[in-house]
Amino acid sequence: MPKSKDLLASLQRTEQQLQVFQKISRFMVREMSLPEVLQGIVTLVVEFMACDSCLLYLIDKNELVLCASNNPHPAEIGKIRLRRDEGLTGWVANQRRLLALSMEAYKDPRFKSFRDLPEDSFEAFLSAPVIARNRVVGVINVQHRAPHQHTGSEMELLTTVGEQVGCALVLARMTPDMVEAASHVDLVLASGPATPVRT
Amino acid sequence: MPKSKDLLASLQRTEQQLQVFQKISRFMVREMSLPEVLQGIVTLVVEFMACDSCLLYLIDKNELVLCASNNPHPAEIGKIRLRRDEGLTGWVANQRRLLALSMEAYKDPRFKSFRDLPEDSFEAFLSAPVIARNRVVGVINVQHRAPHQHTGSEMELLTTVGEQVGCALVLARMTPDMVEAASHVDLVLASGPATPVRT
Repeated sequence: MPKSKDLLASLQRTEQQLQVFQKISRFMVREMSLPEVLQGIVTLVVEFMACDSCLLYLIDKNELVLCASNNPHPAEIGKIRLRRDEGLTGWVANQRRLLALSMEAYKDPRFKSFRDLPEDSFEAFLSAPVIARNRVVGVINVQHRAPHQHTGSEMELLTTVGEQVGCALVLARMTPDMVEAASHVDLVLASGPATPVRT
Repeated sequence: MPKSKDLLASLQRTEQQLQVFQKISRFMVREMSLPEVLQGIVTLVVEFMACDSCLLYLIDKNELVLCASNNPHPAEIGKIRLRRDEGLTGWVANQRRLLALSMEAYKDPRFKSFRDLPEDSFEAFLSAPVIARNRVVGVINVQHRAPHQHTGSEMELLTTVGEQVGCALVLARMTPDMVEAASHVDLVLASGPATPVRT
């Protein structure tokens, strides 16, 4: 049996992780604008990870565009654009894989400095694709100034956050009125019977 | 400091709850049909709650229509229809509130028997609204044959599941091609700057 102290720490961490998802879920059903939802998600990630930076990029044709950030540089939102195939962020978008570098992220051969962001000199880098309806539509990056060994919980959390951001993007396209007018029942019944799903 | 045995049990339960959300999130980004997603969610709820029944109703005009169930009675999907203002399920839809009855649910003054479902004689009843873009679009019910005191985790879980089902319904309206063609960046930037959000 593990020690009470260790169990209590694990329990608190798992409860925090659960609260992040419950709060994201609440954002998605509230009447919030999309920038507010994205900003809210970034804030939750920063609180959970105790990281120095969280940047959210979305794909626009062949570019990745900065769309939300924990740091108050609003002038850069929509302005910082990376080529889709460049740098660590581009690698994550193209490979659709989580990337975790615990130190010297800037020495990775895939790294590309853009000289516009202080984050380019940070040591630790964790990045997950943003997925909507099975397509990569962006990337979310978490960075620590100092070296940081990412835990399994942190990697799991960012993976799921990437999926939930994708859901939030699609949801924002449908107004509350459209939701009310739509017949969800027809949509379910028209799709035919469900086949069993492995969970 | 609580006992190790109790802490370990709490930790395992919290981890299970977290896994339910991670699996639902994975359903929402996969290429699955809507009935498969709803069926998958119902199965996860039954596993977590160890309940005897999980029924999902969606609103169609003034009715609540059975759209997914853990019990293999596919003939009843789309056939069982309740009036929106009747019974415990109608109460939850109209009040937009969680309802938890630990025993003798059938004696509640709001109860209405439909004689079509064995669930009408079950003791314990837990029910949450399904919410999409801040509108009630359905109800999800969990029932135990025997009396059952619902825990805070169970109530929390069903509340969030109701929100995630609402998201899944909206997501299903957008095909992967539409997601790919859509410019999420324009959508974010057109909405103006984000204001700080309390988390």
